Amino acid sequence: MPAYDETIDNPHSERIRRVGDLKERRSRIRHGRFLVEGPQGVREAVSCRPDAVLDIYATVADPQTEPGKEGLAGPSAAASCVPPSPSAGPAVSGPRRAADLPATLGGTVVPIVRQALEVGGIYVHYVTDRVMKAMSKDSQGILAVCRTDAMTGPEGSGWTQAAGPVAAFWQVRDPGNAGTVIRTADAAGCRCVVFVDDCVDPFNPKVVRSTAGSLFHIPVLSMGTEDFMSWCRSSGFDLVAADVYGTEGRPPTPLPDFLEGPSTGGRATAVLFGNEARGLPADILTRTDRIVSIPIYGKAESLNLATSAAVLLYSMAMSGGFHVESY
Amino acid sequence: MPAYDETIDNPHSERIRRVGDLKERRSRIRHGRFLVEGPQGVREAVSCRPDAVLDIYATVADPQTEPGKEGLAGPSAAASCVPPSPSAGPAVSGPRRAADLPATLGGTVVPIVRQALEVGGIYVHYVTDRVMKAMSKDSQGILAVCRTDAMTGPEGSGWTQAAGPVAAFWQVRDPGNAGTVIRTADAAGCRCVVFVDDCVDPFNPKVVRSTAGSLFHIPVLSMGTEDFMSWCRSSGFDLVAADVYGTEGRPPTPLPDFLEGPSTGGRATAVLFGNEARGLPADILTRTDRIVSIPIYGKAESLNLATSAAVLLYSMAMSGGFHVESY
Repeated sequence: MPAYDETIDNPHSERIRRVGDLKERRSRIRHGRFLVEGPQGVREAVSCRPDAVLDIYATVADPQTEPGKEGLAGPSAAASCVPPSPSAGPAVSGPRRAADLPATLGGTVVPIVRQALEVGGIYVHYVTDRVMKAMSKDSQGILAVCRTDAMTGPEGSGWTQAAGPVAAFWQVRDPGNAGTVIRTADAAGCRCVVFVDDCVDPFNPKVVRSTAGSLFHIPVLSMGTEDFMSWCRSSGFDLVAADVYGTEGRPPTPLPDFLEGPSTGGRATAVLFGNEARGLPADILTRTDRIVSIPIYGKAESLNLATSAAVLLYSMAMSGGFHVESY
Repeated sequence: MPAYDETIDNPHSERIRRVGDLKERRSRIRHGRFLVEGPQGVREAVSCRPDAVLDIYATVADPQTEPGKEGLAGPSAAASCVPPSPSAGPAVSGPRRAADLPATLGGTVVPIVRQALEVGGIYVHYVTDRVMKAMSKDSQGILAVCRTDAMTGPEGSGWTQAAGPVAAFWQVRDPGNAGTVIRTADAAGCRCVVFVDDCVDPFNPKVVRSTAGSLFHIPVLSMGTEDFMSWCRSSGFDLVAADVYGTEGRPPTPLPDFLEGPSTGGRATAVLFGNEARGLPADILTRTDRIVSIPIYGKAESLNLATSAAVLLYSMAMSGGFHVESY
């Protein structure tokens, strides 16, 4: 078996350990890489942002327990050469041609691996189940290592150019919430997501999983409160805070009234949501253009962050207050 | 120290073990009891459905490590007698009067315990931190044991009489989702929640926690698919399925068109959502009156169940398609 087709079977190797370490924020910052786990996320990464993908790891059945099976992966649609990624480190495995897919590759990941090989520049490695589990418990047979800098730079050609509002979240802390609001903002046609101030890392593996691929559909930016305020001012955004209480002398406008209110005369909107437990502080609320609250029609005390974002962003999208493209 | 004021300090006692066992569905069914963990849930149970609450367990500092502190709990608003609950088993602890609150009771639970003692019929037990942890890791210092039959019977006087739609969920399986949709349905003014077919147990502790108290605001019923269909027919509900694809020859109506469409002429609406992964099967879709889909304005493949429910139930509430009371 040629070297480029070898299956990585040592879960203690330096390469495998370093991929697994990307679960830690410290390692993500040091190496400028992050993990994408599972077929849905890897597929969207390869389809929408292949420039961000460095390596793909896919589980194959252990060659020592299932030898000699070949050809089950079917014919390849193309057989373009894939040069080793210069930043991927020393090549220890991985086929160079799409035609070379191992027969023991799991069925759901075959089209993803094939696309990765065809698109070029992505290095594919085959690993045993034990090696995969050493890197991730949530891979479902496939994971990708991506470049952080490709995701945080200015909006590039790989990004959607949706015309919806900016969806901004101040001090969002729960990874599941953060991922869900990215997915919701994507679905509602937002132009980007901004994590403001001290938020969970958007490249935390649980955030990435919870976005269900939306991380690769719209830009997710991180910035401090002052930078966010300056950006809103210089961009001419109508800054709307989502808040139940408002500030003294400035009660919030209920969402139905807000939706029927005057338009912003062509100005784009930025909607800012607060922390899951504490909402937005008064000194931020006073600096917004408008405050909007979601009415409670029953007895619930409040809505959680993900629900609030869904209701507000979608009602804005459906009210036609901004131009959106349907895909 | 009188017997009724004793702190339970044995985590291995029969009573404590039985409370902890309520985390298991089998025990909940056998004993007709379920657990409510944390101040928010217990407070809503005591405030809105005291008839369902049998026992409250609250953590006090270990009397052997902090002896002699008294009076920090402040004066009591009332001092009504609380008879031991007949179904609570042998009384091994618990004060009989609200004035007797131990000084070592945690500050956030004091008003809840006081209200429970004043309302009557609820038996309050004080336990050490070690005993509490043996019952629940998620109690935040307080938990309640409630009667299942009080929650699943016909709508009683304790229930809200909201006029919104029935929010029904077919084969919802994830406890966090189930709790969140109950909370959302409550906030959107729904009249009740129905779990249809093989769903997660609504009395699963994680479901209860995720409702943030809404379990005690609106009825949550469970029934089979045929019973649900019969109930919708006999009640004259306009049965609306939430589904992305529809069935052959019967595409879904996009939500914005649905909201602007003709009213149901006074008929109440029941909205049925499908399983998280598989949606609704064709044989159920064909038996609904209408099918509605939530448009995707960006590149996301789909919305998750909780987001779909938030968007659809809230847009119905805000469109004024049904009468709702604001609290």
